[in-house]
Formats: sequence, structure tokens, C-alpha cells
Amino acid sequence: MDNNQQSINLHREWRGKIELRNKVPLATDADLALAYTPGVAAVSSAIAQDSRRSWELTNRANQVAIISDGTAVLGLGDIGPEAAMPVMEGKAAIFKEFAGLDAIPLCLREKDTEAIIKFCRQIEPSFAGINLEDIAAPRCFEILSRLETELSIPVFHDDQDGTAIVVLAALVNALKLTSRQKEEMKVVVNGAGAAGIATTRLLLSYGVSNIIILDSRGIISTERSDLDAAKKDLAVKTNTNKVSGDLAVALEGADVFVGLSKGNLVTAEMVSSMNKGAIIFAMANPTPEIMPDLAKQAGALIVGTGRSDFANQINNALVFPGMFKGLLTYHIKDVTVAMKISVAEAIAAVVEPQHNYLLPKVMDKKVVGAIVEAIAEFKPAAISAPS
Amino acid sequence: MDNNQQSINLHREWRGKIELRNKVPLATDADLALAYTPGVAAVSSAIAQDSRRSWELTNRANQVAIISDGTAVLGLGDIGPEAAMPVMEGKAAIFKEFAGLDAIPLCLREKDTEAIIKFCRQIEPSFAGINLEDIAAPRCFEILSRLETELSIPVFHDDQDGTAIVVLAALVNALKLTSRQKEEMKVVVNGAGAAGIATTRLLLSYGVSNIIILDSRGIISTERSDLDAAKKDLAVKTNTNKVSGDLAVALEGADVFVGLSKGNLVTAEMVSSMNKGAIIFAMANPTPEIMPDLAKQAGALIVGTGRSDFANQINNALVFPGMFKGLLTYHIKDVTVAMKISVAEAIAAVVEPQHNYLLPKVMDKKVVGAIVEAIAEFKPAAISAPS
Repeated sequence: MDNNQQSINLHREWRGKIELRNKVPLATDADLALAYTPGVAAVSSAIAQDSRRSWELTNRANQVAIISDGTAVLGLGDIGPEAAMPVMEGKAAIFKEFAGLDAIPLCLREKDTEAIIKFCRQIEPSFAGINLEDIAAPRCFEILSRLETELSIPVFHDDQDGTAIVVLAALVNALKLTSRQKEEMKVVVNGAGAAGIATTRLLLSYGVSNIIILDSRGIISTERSDLDAAKKDLAVKTNTNKVSGDLAVALEGADVFVGLSKGNLVTAEMVSSMNKGAIIFAMANPTPEIMPDLAKQAGALIVGTGRSDFANQINNALVFPGMFKGLLTYHIKDVTVAMKISVAEAIAAVVEPQHNYLLPKVMDKKVVGAIVEAIAEFKPAAISAPS
Repeated sequence: MDNNQQSINLHREWRGKIELRNKVPLATDADLALAYTPGVAAVSSAIAQDSRRSWELTNRANQVAIISDGTAVLGLGDIGPEAAMPVMEGKAAIFKEFAGLDAIPLCLREKDTEAIIKFCRQIEPSFAGINLEDIAAPRCFEILSRLETELSIPVFHDDQDGTAIVVLAALVNALKLTSRQKEEMKVVVNGAGAAGIATTRLLLSYGVSNIIILDSRGIISTERSDLDAAKKDLAVKTNTNKVSGDLAVALEGADVFVGLSKGNLVTAEMVSSMNKGAIIFAMANPTPEIMPDLAKQAGALIVGTGRSDFANQINNALVFPGMFKGLLTYHIKDVTVAMKISVAEAIAAVVEPQHNYLLPKVMDKKVVGAIVEAIAEFKPAAISAPS
């Protein structure tokens, strides 16, 4: 039985992957009088007097909302909120297993930018943080930046910053292994959705100066007239030689390929046209842009994908549990560029990298601790619960 | 240490009452490849092809949203979403303990009727049912009736129908004990919020013909000009003698008092003015309209409250776990009047009633089964998952 059928069977057998559990006993009348009426009225009254006490007297401090509209799920695209749920439950299971956080998947029948922003404002009192997930570009940029301003709890769009951070972590170790300098190599990012845009931005901030990014119409350059605001901005900051063309053109003489697009877009010929010792991060899910064995045969030195069943999994599952654990532990609201770079370096430093062991496994329990430690450097002088 | 302080300590120690739990193992790369990428893509694709499969392949079929705006919490009133959370977590804990259902509390910073309706439409794909909770009247009536029409999953407003059903259950047994006929007694309902209105409606449907209902301004009658639509409707159907006045006037010669209002509104003198063998349901939380010992001293024969630390707890916690268990088990969308009466009679029939044991305890595991059995009578000929 193949992995797909096994996965469907697992989901059918358990009816999904998460459930609720009571933390307090409910076995006697006395238990009920403490957990529910009349005792609970004293707890509610205490919070009514000072709403900050919700962080102390409810599960809120440990609770993250996973919000998706189901429009950009894995490499599958706009498959709708019901179909997005298995992915969100998977995220929730990972949140719990690796960071002990309670992440509630909320898949919405709603695609309007303003309406999704409003939804997040409405639920803010019930959560300590919001993890946006699988919301299509470009509206995900507006949603994230507006929520960062309008909410008093941290908001993180996994497909943007989570992916950008894990790609940077992988790149840090790949450079170490190949003795490349970040200022002296050519990086090609294929895909200008949420992940591609955010990854390109973070690589630029990190100091990678020679980047070409492509969308489905080809290389993004200032010559093009069909670009939205986010792409226009990157057209200025990347592709300094104003190259035009497709992925094959872009990859000639490149050192690094970062695939955040669709399966099977990269051919062996394209890999062969890259520089010696090429680094391939083919992260489309579930099918990578090129299969690892094919990429290696074509001359790639280091190959990573988003999947757990190949070597070198580069998946934002390495990031989000520790990220939220750190933000919630230290009551930090803003995810800064410096923090993202620091977290990427912390993830990279968990392992002594090898060609087939570029990053720690998602299973590696050391990762969350390393991220939390990195985030601790950004904690405010005085920690207090958000209001 | 009193119960209030003990309750605050319990909530602080456990940081609330509920958490998430993983149903599937996440210990190995192989586990991850089934619960998350790449396997989960097959599950999402299957649901994308047929959204009804979300009932089979995710936790949705067992998942209820508890939605509150925090405007009518216990007898505390409009205390806000943060302060409502301990009550909603208590509901969630009871849902899990007694019905095995996963109920997610979502306390909203939102009081607008249309916006709350929209919110529920947005989250519908993630849940099997919606339990509205502690939303103030009269907007809760519009919200419930609109959602009953607009959603394809069951919607239940606990403070309306849950309370109405448990009051009817208590009344059924109290009538049995006092050999009264429902057509030949006078019932006074104090409180014309969500619970008072819905309870009066259900008692009328059950065949109680002589009812007086009061709001904070006194007896509701067709003579009054300050009534909203729901109260106007009841003014016609109750108070056939067109009595005016306050609670003291209403209670003279009454057989049954149903208090769904505020603490300490009923005096010993008022109880003494009622008919012999008076039945008192003083259900304001946390402080009843009159304390049980005082009511008994004043001549009441049967006294119930909403609390678990007195005899005869009449609390909708007896209703909502079984109600949703039944609705979800049989994929029933509509909660009909006939169903409500049938559920009330089923709850009443769980015990052989006595003056101090009018209803089964919330702790009584037989209650949920009895309700589910009653609801089974209303299942459609062919059961299929909602679309």
C-alpha cells in the first residue's frame, strides 16, 4: 500500500488528527462547582475587572489560531476550506507535539482581504497568536501587514516567513559545506507567491545580492508591465542585469535554485547548466520541482525538498512550533528581520551539516529550544502580558 | 478557602480547563509523512474532489464551535469576550466529558448582529455544529433564526433552547410530584432575555396556558408600549387577564416561579403569597433569585437552582452535550419544537423524581444516552453527511 493510501486510511480511522482534552477533573459535583457554576463566575468577574488576567486564568496564553481560506494549499492551489483542513490539523498536531501549543485550525469560507482581517480582529480575545496559513498571494501580504499593525498579539504567516526562515537556514549550512560567500553567488527563486516573495526579501536582507525571481510568466524584471506591487518592488531589488526569459535562462550559471512553485518544472538539462556544485532546494509539495535522484544525476551537489521521506527536508514545520513558542513565552508581538535571520542561524546551528543532513529533522526535539533561545534575545526589558 | 477562591486557584494552576491532544502518532519520519506532507496532500485532494469527505477524514464531524460575544454571561451581563472565556471553556470541558465532543470556544470582539452571523457562515466548513452562547437578547433571536436558515449545520443557542428544555424537564417532574395539570396552573417567568423568552415559548407549546412573563420593567402585557418584537409576540400569547405590575403582583396565587433574571429578586413574602406547594426554579447564576433555604422556609415545596452545590440543579449543562451528540450522530440540522419537548421528557424520565431529586445530576452518564435516544426518533429516513 502506498503512502497516499496509508495516509487516507489513517485519517479515516482516526477521523482527523486532533481532539480536545480536559485539563481539570469533572468527576464530582464539587469539581463542577469549581470548573463551572458557581465558581467560574468568580473567574469571569476577575477577568472582567482586568482583561489581562485572561492570560493567567484561561488557556489563551497557550492558544494559537491557524487561519486559512484554503486558497493556496501545498502545491494544490485553491482547494477550498474543507480540503485545507487536513493540512491545518497536521500543523496543529506538529504545534502540540513539538512546542506543546494548542493550535486551533479555522478554515474559512471567505476570500475577501478585509473580511479575513476583520475575522482575525474578532477572534483576537481568544488567542495568544495567529498563524496565517495557505492564503494566496498577493492578498496574504496585505492581510499580514495590516494585522501586524492592528492586533496586539503576534501574527505570523507561515508560508511567507516560516518558509523564508527555513530556506535561509538551509542556505546557511549549504554555503558552509560549499565554502561559498553569500555576496558572490547567483540564486534563482522560482515562484513569486507568498513563499517566493518573502524568501527573496529575507535573502536580500541577509546579504545575498544576486537573485533572480520568477513567476509563472518568467523572470521578474523592471522591463515587465504586468507586475503587482510586491513583484514591482522586487523587480527593482533583484535581477540587476535586467535579464528576461524563462527558468532555463535564469538557471544558466546559477549556484542555488530555490523552488517554491509547482512539481516537475526543472529538467536535468537545467540543472546541468548551473554552476559546479549546484544547490537545489526543490520545495513544491507534494511533488518537488525536480526529484532528488534526477537532480543529483544532473550534477547537483546538495538537494533538499519539502518532504519528510527524502533526505534534507526543508519544511517550515521546522520553524513555526519554535517561533510561536518563543513569541508566546516572551510576549513578543513583532517578528523583525533581525529575529528571522537569528532564528534561521539558530536552526542551522543545531546540526553539523553534511550533504545529506543539511538541517535538523523536524523530529529533532532540539530545534524548538534553539529557536526559543534565539528569540529570547529579542525579548523586551520588562515582560508583561499583552492588554 | 471558599469555592470562589478555590475556583480561581484551579484556573490559575491549570491555565484554563482545556487543551489540544493529538490522536495520531508523530514519533517518526514515517508518521510525519502520513500525518503531514506528502501523505496529507492525498487527503486534501480527496476532500477537494468531494467536500463531504471532510466529515470522514478530519475531526470536523466531532467538532462544535462555541460562539459568544460575552454580552450576557451568567448573571454577570456584558463582561466582554476575555471574561466570557472561562464559562466557554467550562462548556467545552462538559461537552468532552459527557458527550465526547470537541467544542472550541471562540469569544468574539464583535457585537453586531450581521457581523456575528457572517462570522458563523465563515467558519461553517470547519465545524459540525454551532453552539451560540451568552449572546444578549434581542439580537440573539435574529442571529439564531438567520443561522438556522443560512447554514447547513445545526445551530443551537444554549441560553434559549437549552434552558427552555431543562426548565420543561424540571417542570414535568415537579408536576408529577405535585399532581398538577399543566393546563390548570399559573406559571410566572421572571426575565425576558434569551432564556426567559425561549422558555415561555416552549412552555406555551407544551400546553401551559396560564403564564405571566416579566422583564425588568414589570409584567409584559399588550397594554405596554415599550416592547420589542419578541416581547410583543409573547404579550399576546401570555397574561390573558392583562395584569399590570411588578413581580410581587405576578406571584400572588402562582404555582410555579421560573427565575431567569438576577440574584435576590424574590422575597420570602412573595413566595408566601404563592399557592400551596409552590414550585420555585431560581436559576440566576451565580446567585439565585432566592436562596433555597429561604424559599423553603417561606413555604415552597420544591426548589431548584442553576448551581451544582444545591439540590435540584436545573442547568442547561444537562441538555447541550446530549443535544449535540444526537444532532451530530444522526446528521440532523433542525431543532424542532417536538424534538425539544421530547428531549425534555427524556431527561425527566431518567430519574424517579423526589422533592430534592427532581432531575438527574449533570454527572449522571445516563442523561446523554437518553437524549440521543429521544433525538433518534427525529432522524431522517436516509442519513447522509451534510454537503
